[in-house]
Amino acid sequence: MTGQINRRILLKSRPDGIPVPGNFELDQAPVPEPGAGQVLIRTAYLSVDPAMKGWISAVANYAEPVAVGAVMRAITVGEVVASNRDDYRAGEIVLGMQGWQDYALSDGSDIQRKVDPGDGPISTALGILGHTGLTAYFGLLDVGQPRDGETVLVSTAAGSVGSVVGQIAGIKGCRAVGLTGSDDKAALCRSEFGYDETINYKTAGNLDAALAAACPDGIDVYFDNVGGATLDAVLRHINIGARVIVCGTASVAAWDPPPIGPRVERHILVKRARMQGILIFDYAGRTDEGIRQMAEWMRAGRLHYREDVVDGIENAPAALAGLYRGENMGKMLIRTRPEAG
Amino acid sequence: MTGQINRRILLKSRPDGIPVPGNFELDQAPVPEPGAGQVLIRTAYLSVDPAMKGWISAVANYAEPVAVGAVMRAITVGEVVASNRDDYRAGEIVLGMQGWQDYALSDGSDIQRKVDPGDGPISTALGILGHTGLTAYFGLLDVGQPRDGETVLVSTAAGSVGSVVGQIAGIKGCRAVGLTGSDDKAALCRSEFGYDETINYKTAGNLDAALAAACPDGIDVYFDNVGGATLDAVLRHINIGARVIVCGTASVAAWDPPPIGPRVERHILVKRARMQGILIFDYAGRTDEGIRQMAEWMRAGRLHYREDVVDGIENAPAALAGLYRGENMGKMLIRTRPEAG
Repeated sequence: MTGQINRRILLKSRPDGIPVPGNFELDQAPVPEPGAGQVLIRTAYLSVDPAMKGWISAVANYAEPVAVGAVMRAITVGEVVASNRDDYRAGEIVLGMQGWQDYALSDGSDIQRKVDPGDGPISTALGILGHTGLTAYFGLLDVGQPRDGETVLVSTAAGSVGSVVGQIAGIKGCRAVGLTGSDDKAALCRSEFGYDETINYKTAGNLDAALAAACPDGIDVYFDNVGGATLDAVLRHINIGARVIVCGTASVAAWDPPPIGPRVERHILVKRARMQGILIFDYAGRTDEGIRQMAEWMRAGRLHYREDVVDGIENAPAALAGLYRGENMGKMLIRTRPEAG
Repeated sequence: MTGQINRRILLKSRPDGIPVPGNFELDQAPVPEPGAGQVLIRTAYLSVDPAMKGWISAVANYAEPVAVGAVMRAITVGEVVASNRDDYRAGEIVLGMQGWQDYALSDGSDIQRKVDPGDGPISTALGILGHTGLTAYFGLLDVGQPRDGETVLVSTAAGSVGSVVGQIAGIKGCRAVGLTGSDDKAALCRSEFGYDETINYKTAGNLDAALAAACPDGIDVYFDNVGGATLDAVLRHINIGARVIVCGTASVAAWDPPPIGPRVERHILVKRARMQGILIFDYAGRTDEGIRQMAEWMRAGRLHYREDVVDGIENAPAALAGLYRGENMGKMLIRTRPEAG
């Protein structure tokens, strides 16, 4: 790889709330040579995820924050282009944490799994057959435990997680109601993602009235990706025994100092509700189970997905900022080498 | 019963927050005669419960509020003194919702179960073998699911629920830490109620520091009877996978308008924690199971209880107010007929 360039996106500064492109910088370095026990991976697709806000925040999270000056942490799909390891061969496709860069060395510890291109386009390993799809799968089924006939409400319903939640809710016989931020997304939710009804929260006016109208039998399961004032409103409409899956808090710009809101314990007590967080890494041992079931539904035409593919690693920071503005219509991905198709 | 007097405590006005004696009045009425399908019950013990604040509030709760002018709702143990029903005979002891009064008619619908005096003093049907003990049992074991070696923190640790939670936590191999409001109660928690450590929150100073010192391995299970600022502090110390059992919100004086506090969803997400409400009525089908196990532990000397018995129905309102001031050392009861022993 001597003489070739490794483009890398480095974290330049910690954001004050939502990340902006200025928090990152594009860097160029030589492509490294793999040493003993190492493989060299050339990335093909880089993931752009809402969780990144947490990864670059200085506040404690489930992982150590990305250091300022380091390559931005990201889940990637790439090809092993050189290997000094017995367990990986050149040409194999791997899912891992190679970050926002063209090339990465790995000792195998940051590779999550090999990707079988027979499962579908390799980009799906970052989406519907990856963390977001599996988050929807285990979050809804394992944490939410929806029952036939129940009402399942989902925030960021058109997003990479929400779009899958709606469809699985439908497969399980539930009435799926999606909260989303544009009429285009709402239409997509109804036409492609299995939603029976949608609420455009930006135009709905009073959210309580909109929730009451869209969920006349109350809300049994709330799959929450946003937290904040939307969660506050939803709690006023949950049924006895409701389950709230806390999957993300995208609507809350900053947690330091902790923002305040209406206290929740009374709702939880009176409704004997359950609020529970999900992190997909806790389901590492059940990944195969999830992929097997999701791939089966995909083959049966019961599960659709959308990708928003942005070409060029240099566009990753802007894509991330756009994610928080709600601009994407599906799983947001960066394709590093458009010429490779 | 002609000519005898039925003393009754009526709800005179709704409290503004914590109930005070002035919200009630003592009334005298003739003892009623049972009609067809009715039994007449003479109460022996009246329960005084933290939940009463909710029952007399105008804000929606899991039951309709007590009407102003009506007999105060309460769980009672009493004796059937006259019966026009085949399923109850005079002399039988029953647990029911006969309210704060000497005598009550019943068509059976507000009788919960017959009490076997062989299980222990009939007053225990209102405490350790009643709603409070069963709340501790199912709340800790079914909702909290404590595992051997975990740290279980309990608020109002010396109370009728908390005193049982501490002991069951110990039976299950957990380290029990109790929050309570006096040194006397803290000593009782350690000597009688199975607590390994206690925190007197009134004298502890900084609660975060006290929690960190008392729970050096973090908090795995929090059995919460108080909500509010204590809950806020506890959430800063929970471990990954923690369970918060929301059993009561005694520290929050009023819910209308909803009080505000630090948002919780980030804690729940980052720690993949579970907050879940418990209402013992949801476990009606498993009452026998709970009583059987608790009675067995009592016989084995592994489970102790305390009662704070106040003589005289006229003292019920003051006893209730005292409950919210934290004056009781065990299950608070009113004995209606001290002369009966």
